[in-house]
Amino acid sequence: MKAALVGAGYWGPNLARNLVAQRGLDGVVVCDLDPVKLEKMKERFPSVETTRDFDAVLGDPEIGAVLLATPISTHGPLGLRVLEANKHLFVEKPLASSTAEARQLMQAADAAGRVLMVGHTFEFSPPVLRAKEMIDAGELGDIFFISVMRVNLGLHQRDVSVIWDLVPHDFSILFHWLKESPCYVNAFGRDCVQKGIPDVAFINLRFPSGVIANIEVAWLAPSKLRRTAVVGQKKMLVYDDTENVEKLKLYDQGVDFHDPETFGEYQLSYRTGDIVSPRLSNQEPLRMEVEHFFHCIQTGERPKTDGASGLRVVEALEAAETSLRTGHPVHLEGRRLDA
Amino acid sequence: MKAALVGAGYWGPNLARNLVAQRGLDGVVVCDLDPVKLEKMKERFPSVETTRDFDAVLGDPEIGAVLLATPISTHGPLGLRVLEANKHLFVEKPLASSTAEARQLMQAADAAGRVLMVGHTFEFSPPVLRAKEMIDAGELGDIFFISVMRVNLGLHQRDVSVIWDLVPHDFSILFHWLKESPCYVNAFGRDCVQKGIPDVAFINLRFPSGVIANIEVAWLAPSKLRRTAVVGQKKMLVYDDTENVEKLKLYDQGVDFHDPETFGEYQLSYRTGDIVSPRLSNQEPLRMEVEHFFHCIQTGERPKTDGASGLRVVEALEAAETSLRTGHPVHLEGRRLDA
Amino acid sequence: MKAALVGAGYWGPNLARNLVAQRGLDGVVVCDLDPVKLEKMKERFPSVETTRDFDAVLGDPEIGAVLLATPISTHGPLGLRVLEANKHLFVEKPLASSTAEARQLMQAADAAGRVLMVGHTFEFSPPVLRAKEMIDAGELGDIFFISVMRVNLGLHQRDVSVIWDLVPHDFSILFHWLKESPCYVNAFGRDCVQKGIPDVAFINLRFPSGVIANIEVAWLAPSKLRRTAVVGQKKMLVYDDTENVEKLKLYDQGVDFHDPETFGEYQLSYRTGDIVSPRLSNQEPLRMEVEHFFHCIQTGERPKTDGASGLRVVEALEAAETSLRTGHPVHLEGRRLDA
Amino acid sequence: MKAALVGAGYWGPNLARNLVAQRGLDGVVVCDLDPVKLEKMKERFPSVETTRDFDAVLGDPEIGAVLLATPISTHGPLGLRVLEANKHLFVEKPLASSTAEARQLMQAADAAGRVLMVGHTFEFSPPVLRAKEMIDAGELGDIFFISVMRVNLGLHQRDVSVIWDLVPHDFSILFHWLKESPCYVNAFGRDCVQKGIPDVAFINLRFPSGVIANIEVAWLAPSKLRRTAVVGQKKMLVYDDTENVEKLKLYDQGVDFHDPETFGEYQLSYRTGDIVSPRLSNQEPLRMEVEHFFHCIQTGERPKTDGASGLRVVEALEAAETSLRTGHPVHLEGRRLDA
Repeated sequence: MKAALVGAGYWGPNLARNLVAQRGLDGVVVCDLDPVKLEKMKERFPSVETTRDFDAVLGDPEIGAVLLATPISTHGPLGLRVLEANKHLFVEKPLASSTAEARQLMQAADAAGRVLMVGHTFEFSPPVLRAKEMIDAGELGDIFFISVMRVNLGLHQRDVSVIWDLVPHDFSILFHWLKESPCYVNAFGRDCVQKGIPDVAFINLRFPSGVIANIEVAWLAPSKLRRTAVVGQKKMLVYDDTENVEKLKLYDQGVDFHDPETFGEYQLSYRTGDIVSPRLSNQEPLRMEVEHFFHCIQTGERPKTDGASGLRVVEALEAAETSLRTGHPVHLEGRRLDA
Repeated sequence: MKAALVGAGYWGPNLARNLVAQRGLDGVVVCDLDPVKLEKMKERFPSVETTRDFDAVLGDPEIGAVLLATPISTHGPLGLRVLEANKHLFVEKPLASSTAEARQLMQAADAAGRVLMVGHTFEFSPPVLRAKEMIDAGELGDIFFISVMRVNLGLHQRDVSVIWDLVPHDFSILFHWLKESPCYVNAFGRDCVQKGIPDVAFINLRFPSGVIANIEVAWLAPSKLRRTAVVGQKKMLVYDDTENVEKLKLYDQGVDFHDPETFGEYQLSYRTGDIVSPRLSNQEPLRMEVEHFFHCIQTGERPKTDGASGLRVVEALEAAETSLRTGHPVHLEGRRLDA
Repeated sequence: MKAALVGAGYWGPNLARNLVAQRGLDGVVVCDLDPVKLEKMKERFPSVETTRDFDAVLGDPEIGAVLLATPISTHGPLGLRVLEANKHLFVEKPLASSTAEARQLMQAADAAGRVLMVGHTFEFSPPVLRAKEMIDAGELGDIFFISVMRVNLGLHQRDVSVIWDLVPHDFSILFHWLKESPCYVNAFGRDCVQKGIPDVAFINLRFPSGVIANIEVAWLAPSKLRRTAVVGQKKMLVYDDTENVEKLKLYDQGVDFHDPETFGEYQLSYRTGDIVSPRLSNQEPLRMEVEHFFHCIQTGERPKTDGASGLRVVEALEAAETSLRTGHPVHLEGRRLDA
Repeated sequence: MKAALVGAGYWGPNLARNLVAQRGLDGVVVCDLDPVKLEKMKERFPSVETTRDFDAVLGDPEIGAVLLATPISTHGPLGLRVLEANKHLFVEKPLASSTAEARQLMQAADAAGRVLMVGHTFEFSPPVLRAKEMIDAGELGDIFFISVMRVNLGLHQRDVSVIWDLVPHDFSILFHWLKESPCYVNAFGRDCVQKGIPDVAFINLRFPSGVIANIEVAWLAPSKLRRTAVVGQKKMLVYDDTENVEKLKLYDQGVDFHDPETFGEYQLSYRTGDIVSPRLSNQEPLRMEVEHFFHCIQTGERPKTDGASGLRVVEALEAAETSLRTGHPVHLEGRRLDA
């Protein structure tokens, strides 16, 4: 089986590097409309074949799997054609530009009996996985709230807002950690540089469990921040992706809440304890992700980041975008996930 | 003239220390209902007189000025009696627990011809003042947005929410910097530990100029943060009050926005430049504040942090609390201040 | 019993504050030649008596203990007179300006049966004590080397070098941790600002156990550093006194050395592990120190930082100063301490 | 002209990457005794030719330049053969394993009229170059001292000490900045893990101008440090290579030394000022270095890091190694460089 990468732009070369290194593939084809990008790809990865003809990719029986790294608006239409051509499909995040399209992709994958996976890369990253272990083990106690900052001096995109560009990461991380999707989404923001393209946004989420979250995203901040704090009853976890060494820190400090039994009033005690920065593995998330896609193709396993996972993120993005446009919060179903 | 400090609790000793050191006072009287607190005060500042009788303070013709450091709910009623007794009044932040009370205090001060000042201490702090200079000088260019985090493991208050406890600082700082009060206030939060007392909140503000802000406050986070980022068209300013040395940093990096002239599309260029941490003076904000109060008494000058300043903060706090309770944003008048 | 503090200069007020708070004392007398300093002392601590007459202190039968915070060159002569007047003696670090004087003080204390204690304050500080526990428990494994930086923009002293001013801290900490005194001292430095007064020095130590150390001290560096790294076979400990929260960090990373059995060559494996910043108590070291002095007076216990401890530090300081002057290393006896 | 890279080990691939990208070359040949390494090289850089035959490289008239990335002990013998074969020579740092060999290389290069360049890569790195500009412009004032820490958990080398492994970087940087070579070298260290192979060392240098330096190097420290502080009369510069953003910081704080006019005593004043982290370019030092080598070949210019530069570093390394072995400082000539 060969695999095809469609889209040789900003993110494409990272996927190509991992495809070329993937064992068991009979070849890698890269498809893009732009011959200059194809030439660069060929230069860097001489073993790949290149083509400008998407139909040829679809018609090639040797190509069993397609990875889409094209603009968001094309994920739906191109992805559908891949599945209809009976090939396994990997789509860069977000899965689609609307829930309608995301659902179509899921149905098409079911109908064809093909694997559908979305590139929520952070769900394969060592700090996110380690944090998940701690949360699942109850180390933090009940989670109170989550605060996220993802700001930097970004590439302004002409077609999508900062929400569609940056927030898929955080939605996929949070839903994965909490094992639920939000029932309330409110977004507040501004289009500071290009009118009509929001470049800073603050998003509030509420989950069925009661957990609340605030996510700040911006393309305008010269000091890059990638900081997520999960505050629980027992401990607080800080995940800082700009740190080289101490990406994850666990603060054993918190408020002990003693039930007011006979005393007639609330009693609070304050503890402070050790701070631990756990050891993390060095595995490249993208490599884990690509290997997982081919593993699922071989074994028939359902991907960790399957169509449903992609849909949840798209649904929340859509809600955030709607909220930003209308100025009103959006209420969603809010589901407990069986993870 | 003597001065009286009413309230010898958590914050009282800091005011007492500065009152005792204030030149030109004929004495300092400390008033509290709790004799233990008075005894401690006397031990630490042997020169002060102490009393449990608030009426005696009001009736003492030698006492020309009163400083209130009592619980928020008492600011209005006690403050009114001070002004009605024809004494100058300093009230710890926030000025009052409602706009109605704040307005009463302002009217009473006007009627009595006495100085009314509110303890927005940060408006006297070197980093906030230096930041104001930079903003006023246009060093940041047009301001796009402001992001504030003020979280720590706090003392839970039984009577007020985290909004009334922590946000007065940030409202007073932001209104001072921007020279305007907000036209939109939305608050989102949760009462994690004590039911009915919100202990984490995210507040969104929009100002008449278009500037937006997000303020995160919490009593539950073991890793203390005091970080305010002001992102402008030319530069970004970060004020981190937990830093010992580099409290203020100016990032000369940003997006240059070139108008689209003949080209038919937007052009953006990215710059990066030096980072500067300016020298700051070592003056104690509280000392500056107390001196300013007595300076205004002597000269008849209007305090920087006058009743109107206190009212604006109370109005926005009230709006935030209402929004948190109702789940809806609150629209305010939003005024340009003549500062 | 009353206690007398002699020397009301830079460090004196800190001792005075702790003396005034010390339970069981019948009074505190402060003695200094400078009436301005005495007046300030009186202003800040109204309960103290003041005097310019050192002989009156010695002759006062109510005064049972004297604390010396005078210039280093006076520690020996003044201290001797205190002990000869049959009073307990606390001397600020370093104990004396020469080993000869330090030995005289020890003999005089023995002869008089009085307590002699030296103010090696860091031996009472929570991070140093916690580090000692870890080292003693073998958590670091065999210690390989220690690296110390103690630099800042210092007060230049007219009479002593940066070695006598800053290194007593590090010598007392290191000897305490390692339970040995050095057999080799080499110093290298320069008098950059005032000719004849070295203001930067690098000191190399070797201990009988084989441990080596490098200590950098300077008065000239605008960015303050207080960093001590202890590198062991199993773990590395970093003590950074400028950190507010994470003063102590333990790095569980290191080289495992497997003995070369049949393989004919050395085998090394690398591990990396968690980083832990342990919880520390908030006790003020100086308070612990002053309490320990009075505890020893009452119980007859030998102080942790006794004359022998002071002598070891003075001996190493003398060696470092000699090495700096002559350009040659100084070899000392190097003793294992029974701690 | 083709270029040949000899040595495909740890560092070789980095050179290969830059050779392949170098314009104007007719081809790149990689030579190594190990066929596995050659195969990996070929895989990664399919355009290169590979060979195990060093003689074939020397005999190939198309190959005009050779880059040596072999073990230190082979730099001299292999380099001589390259120059005798009339080819231009680039040698990874350090230039040779002794001053005798280094001089032979210089003579051979002169005799053959070929370019001889040593890979002091840091002299091409943006922070080092920016620091040099500041120093040359007198921004720091007279330099007082330099303190260097270069420690990490390193690969233990079986054949050379930590001095030959890590110190070439710092010697080349310091000599470049100061424009002089040291007149005094003293080294102190220990072989903690493998007997006979020092893995921690502290090196003291004195320069003819009076500047002193302390360099700490170790393979044993789990917390990586790359910090160089240059303390001058006016300012202090800190270069921290582990920082992502603020690699260089300039502290405008220092001691002003006023000459003692009529006052009969020294007067010192203390200033503190801004801290600036200047913008740095993103150029890859290795790329600049490789381009410089080919630029010198084409133009006949003398390389910045020529044989004399390499010799100075080797001379100081030899002195440090001797000092470490004998326990005595080594006195060198100490030259002012015409840079």
